[in-house]
Amino acid sequence: MTPQPNPQAGAAVKAADRAHVFHSWSAQELIDPLAVAGAEGSYFWDYDGNRYLDFTSGLVYTNIGYQHPKVVAAIQEQAATLTTFAPAFAVESRSEAARLIAERTPGDLDKIFFTNGGADAIEHAVRMARIHTGRPKVLTAYRSYHGGTQQAVNMTGDPRRWASDSGTAGVVHFWAPFLYRSRFYAETEQQECERALEHLETTIAFEGPGTIAAIVLETIPGTAGIMVPPRGYLAGVRDLCDRYGIVFVLDEVMAGFGRTGEWFAADLFEVTPDLMTFAKGVNSGYVPLGGVAISGEIAETFGKRPYPGGLTYSGHPLACAAAVATIKLMAEEGVVANASVVGAQVVEPGLRALAERHPSVGEVRGVGMFWALELVKNRETREPLVPYNAAGEANAPMAAFAAAAKAHGLWPFVNMNRTHVVPPCTLTEAEAKEGLAALDAALSMADEYTE
Amino acid sequence: MTPQPNPQAGAAVKAADRAHVFHSWSAQELIDPLAVAGAEGSYFWDYDGNRYLDFTSGLVYTNIGYQHPKVVAAIQEQAATLTTFAPAFAVESRSEAARLIAERTPGDLDKIFFTNGGADAIEHAVRMARIHTGRPKVLTAYRSYHGGTQQAVNMTGDPRRWASDSGTAGVVHFWAPFLYRSRFYAETEQQECERALEHLETTIAFEGPGTIAAIVLETIPGTAGIMVPPRGYLAGVRDLCDRYGIVFVLDEVMAGFGRTGEWFAADLFEVTPDLMTFAKGVNSGYVPLGGVAISGEIAETFGKRPYPGGLTYSGHPLACAAAVATIKLMAEEGVVANASVVGAQVVEPGLRALAERHPSVGEVRGVGMFWALELVKNRETREPLVPYNAAGEANAPMAAFAAAAKAHGLWPFVNMNRTHVVPPCTLTEAEAKEGLAALDAALSMADEYTE
Ligand SMILES: Cc1ncc(COP(=O)(O)O)c(C=O)c1O
Ligand SMILES: Cc1ncc(COP(=O)(O)O)c(C=O)c1O
Repeated sequence: MTPQPNPQAGAAVKAADRAHVFHSWSAQELIDPLAVAGAEGSYFWDYDGNRYLDFTSGLVYTNIGYQHPKVVAAIQEQAATLTTFAPAFAVESRSEAARLIAERTPGDLDKIFFTNGGADAIEHAVRMARIHTGRPKVLTAYRSYHGGTQQAVNMTGDPRRWASDSGTAGVVHFWAPFLYRSRFYAETEQQECERALEHLETTIAFEGPGTIAAIVLETIPGTAGIMVPPRGYLAGVRDLCDRYGIVFVLDEVMAGFGRTGEWFAADLFEVTPDLMTFAKGVNSGYVPLGGVAISGEIAETFGKRPYPGGLTYSGHPLACAAAVATIKLMAEEGVVANASVVGAQVVEPGLRALAERHPSVGEVRGVGMFWALELVKNRETREPLVPYNAAGEANAPMAAFAAAAKAHGLWPFVNMNRTHVVPPCTLTEAEAKEGLAALDAALSMADEYTE
Repeated sequence: MTPQPNPQAGAAVKAADRAHVFHSWSAQELIDPLAVAGAEGSYFWDYDGNRYLDFTSGLVYTNIGYQHPKVVAAIQEQAATLTTFAPAFAVESRSEAARLIAERTPGDLDKIFFTNGGADAIEHAVRMARIHTGRPKVLTAYRSYHGGTQQAVNMTGDPRRWASDSGTAGVVHFWAPFLYRSRFYAETEQQECERALEHLETTIAFEGPGTIAAIVLETIPGTAGIMVPPRGYLAGVRDLCDRYGIVFVLDEVMAGFGRTGEWFAADLFEVTPDLMTFAKGVNSGYVPLGGVAISGEIAETFGKRPYPGGLTYSGHPLACAAAVATIKLMAEEGVVANASVVGAQVVEPGLRALAERHPSVGEVRGVGMFWALELVKNRETREPLVPYNAAGEANAPMAAFAAAAKAHGLWPFVNMNRTHVVPPCTLTEAEAKEGLAALDAALSMADEYTE
């Protein structure tokens, strides 16, 4: 599966990258991007013959793994037929992708507005909510990520917002439930849930219900730490939205399309938002695609009145063909069920066993193929293994952990003091065990920084 | 070239579209999207056997026409090799696309930040300028379009901004030169140029030079009317930017990659901006891709300090492979030269001849494959054929014009009182003549509304 090493080719790729590619979220002179030669299924490899088990799914988007032959074939076929066409027309792959998505979205979220990715899906969802309600403000959670464009990054509740915070994007941040680091001095999940809802309702009251267009939440916050909300929380938010005429937006860009062992994380909680954003898993990022699933009521707002938004590649035929193939194979091959079963039967028990052995693991949480290990200096105090938003020397323990994982053939997802276990939803039992063994070794390195 | 009609298949595509696809910039119940069955070169066709010469290039992006076999092959090959990979790595097609683009961009715009399309390119360019200067405001022109996300649409100078205008995006609009509808009471191009620069400098003075991060201009405004700026204007703006420490951003999303008969419209004016946005023509939209070309000085700002922005599909391998193939074939097949030659030798004289014959044509302007006909009720008063932002009955003359063009097998680009002639840059002389003949017929319809 791994071809012959070819360091010379790798050096050329790397040299052109360093000369001409400006990388996101990075200091350009301080990075050293690995040149990747190929990928298949749950693995990728570099030009020196090193092969890695990918526990990141890229940026948590290759839910079907790399180079799935059915999607590759669908892309090739659509490319040969009609690779692109403008959004104002009806095009077969666009119609079919919308139909297959609408078939799976909760409730009456049956109209699909396509975008290129997650950030623009959020941008358009916010616009729809503002126009639908005639209200200006958007409530979002600390510990969240909604994308890199100006509106989306202002909605984000992590340090990626800081440099772009305009204070003028009409966003108010509140705290969502997270028992392990409760902001509500709660001791049980139920208490955390009740107090988080009280906190949100108070926030609504003081901001003024009539000023709030939307509440936007990741169904399960992803990059911020995979905090599965307690039973009742999302239903409670749904009630508050109904009570105050607020549009409820669930951001399923990361959690959607199988990641949680359901088609959508909303299915876990039996809650139906008014708008739902998606991207990533919709076609495993084989071709850029995102979108907003829209309720009947909001679609009606734009029935006789134009929706004032768009983009050149809305409903891109090639991207939609990849979505059609992805959704069909996920159904045929039981990918969503695999995430649920391998997640519950292999990944979860494996991670819990690691937590028992490694003092650096403060908490294991998640569902399906969507897990976080919270690494701590001390289990009692729960002090994070590295400070919030640490860089350089202060981040050494996490850097050491990541290096150890790579040395054991595992590419880990690392964010602040956490490692996320977010492999493809197609992960086999054997691959899960291989990854758990590598994590075991890497956590021994993390243990050395505990006190 | 046109396959057998298949109205039944077309009806199914249309039905799923109406049931599930939410279309941009539209009232969902008032549209009737044509179902498109296929496309090749400068033509596309529907399921009923109607074939259209596409004078729109989609949304002015299929600069190489539809289904170019070299790009189709490159997409198929890249799909088979490595269709997607996360942005933090070095990947061959990403490196190569960045190199080929940097080779063609003016001056030292040698670092490429990739996005999915035009709007996010603008969003990131603005962020770079704000952080580079430490200043908040952005100056943009009325009669412009910069994209559909919140920051980009607030920069836009046409009615698409209105519904989303937050008044808080730090944007100030000014008037750029446009002699035919001069805001400066000018009578010559030179006067228009001088006065437009005076107007801009006064705007800078009153807004406060120290508050202005960037001036953002389409090198040649596209959707707003293809107003080729007078000689000296862009050089004058460059001077003002240098004098006041303002970042000069040229938006070449529509004008770039051959549209004007040069690789970039900036080449026509021998001006080098600090940042240049691109999308569309970079790979003719075969796979969604956009980006920002960054000067050495601005790249250095993010040398040791992280650039706080990104997106999941930055530098998408499949999109980059399509860009590599597109740029190479454009060079090999002389596509840019073709736009220049067929533009100057066939399209321009043809349009000027139409203007002589048709009283509805107020002005013909453009360059390369980038032309606008300004349709008027009366050539003396220059009153537009339809009012600004007309809809419904008020827009009947333009609707009649468009219907007549389609009846003659030409798909026209129509915006307010203008039709744009923006065919693929690969347009042949014969196709140009065919399109001009159809325009001739359609303009006779427009003539009926003149006074
Ligand atoms: C929950 C969530 N929303 C939005 C986004 C933004 O998506 P994109 O990077 O495609 O713009 C992300 C990306 O990680 C995400 O995780
Ligand atoms: C000049 C210009 N800038 C930006 C954009 C936005 O590009 P996109 O639709 O890919 O977001 C457009 C689209 O037409 C454009 O013409």
